[in-house]
Amino acid sequence: MGKIKLTVAYDGTDFSGFQRQPGKRTVQGTLEETLTRVTGETISVTGAGRTDAGVHALGQVIHFETSVPIPTERWVRLLNASLPRDLLVTQAKEVPREFHARYDACWKHYRYTLDTCPIPDLFRRRYQTHYPHPLSRDRMQRAARHLTGTHDFTSFSAARAQVKDRRRSLYHCEVKEVNPGVLSIEVVGDGFLYHMVRILTGTLVEIGAGKIPPDEIRGILKAKDRSAAGKTFPPEGLVMVEVGYTPWERGTVKNPIS
Amino acid sequence: MGKIKLTVAYDGTDFSGFQRQPGKRTVQGTLEETLTRVTGETISVTGAGRTDAGVHALGQVIHFETSVPIPTERWVRLLNASLPRDLLVTQAKEVPREFHARYDACWKHYRYTLDTCPIPDLFRRRYQTHYPHPLSRDRMQRAARHLTGTHDFTSFSAARAQVKDRRRSLYHCEVKEVNPGVLSIEVVGDGFLYHMVRILTGTLVEIGAGKIPPDEIRGILKAKDRSAAGKTFPPEGLVMVEVGYTPWERGTVKNPIS
Repeated sequence: MGKIKLTVAYDGTDFSGFQRQPGKRTVQGTLEETLTRVTGETISVTGAGRTDAGVHALGQVIHFETSVPIPTERWVRLLNASLPRDLLVTQAKEVPREFHARYDACWKHYRYTLDTCPIPDLFRRRYQTHYPHPLSRDRMQRAARHLTGTHDFTSFSAARAQVKDRRRSLYHCEVKEVNPGVLSIEVVGDGFLYHMVRILTGTLVEIGAGKIPPDEIRGILKAKDRSAAGKTFPPEGLVMVEVGYTPWERGTVKNPIS
Repeated sequence: MGKIKLTVAYDGTDFSGFQRQPGKRTVQGTLEETLTRVTGETISVTGAGRTDAGVHALGQVIHFETSVPIPTERWVRLLNASLPRDLLVTQAKEVPREFHARYDACWKHYRYTLDTCPIPDLFRRRYQTHYPHPLSRDRMQRAARHLTGTHDFTSFSAARAQVKDRRRSLYHCEVKEVNPGVLSIEVVGDGFLYHMVRILTGTLVEIGAGKIPPDEIRGILKAKDRSAAGKTFPPEGLVMVEVGYTPWERGTVKNPIS
């Protein structure tokens, strides 16, 4: 019995999210069906995080157990030959029995991309939210600075979220202009509440548009009230970029244009 | 009665090509339905060229006639609000009655993009053909040079093509490395035969892979025989980039990373 860690990328547009649901096309369901077909064993898969419907991944991590003796380097090609075109394995590694994709994750890097040009970039439209209004990157970046550190992020969490402890640590929060008129919000943290990055984005957008002063974000955090923050932005701009299994080091965030 | 010229971009993946066909989702059909709905008139649309199923466009040009007095600058927003997400109007212009999108076109610029990396780039996978084998850009470029000028391109045209005169002029043919491991073939010409760019690509790939010497492409041209050239490459890597309505000028080809 061996344990395999896979890094997977997917275009979330046509998936009903990561988590398996009866009768729906999900990332977990598609991976499990493919692994079961390829190995002849019933395989179940554990992911580092559950992305919502429409959210993408470049570096989601999953693990599974199998007794089929496939050499590690063959998993990538074997699975990609069977997976649909919007789901891709980029790496496979044999890991110790104790490894757990979710519990062992030290940090996650998410990116939210906004296209502020009047006409959207058609070939990136599936992966960027079109918001054709001027935004001040400087104002957004000034607000973003207040978000790093350990805070109670209740204001930036969907009201219906069930979790009790809403303290999370953000190691990195940066607003970049990746192309003329295209902004990315890069967030790295030890964990994220439900809809947290999408609400952070909606709030930073209001700040970038001049509706809220940048320093006001401290008050929004302190309010611990969902209604103090901005709108939940749509899923298509959001990507799970990377999951880290060693403590966060500054400077790990890569160039956002893949 | 006015005549409007539109520049349109589309992701060809989910279209059965440009040309209207009963019961199929086509670019022309979708544009005509949307224009008919928006104007209340029965509108028919003429395109600069008919792209095949799966082929994309950044700068397809179409014209249509209408008596609805919509100001030119409003067409773009009006149509984009009604069009599906994989079809986009990027420009609208009022043109003289005599303008014809196909007959007046002086040149067309097509791009074929090949991803030669072992693992494809998921977010560009819809727009690049994955060919995970080493290719020599230099060899391909040496062959490409022999293609510019006026030639009979019978060898590079689908055998079932009906057209009689197969002489065409290529103004520009260049192989670029746009990203590490990603090659684009940029072709500008006065007209293209059926499948011509995809067969040119298949032939340049065989040359890049070392199967055919670069200078041999002259012999393939001279043969005037489809079987002398390489395979027809798949549609997903092909994009109609631009259509020109003034004579070709060197240096018009833009950076291929949009």
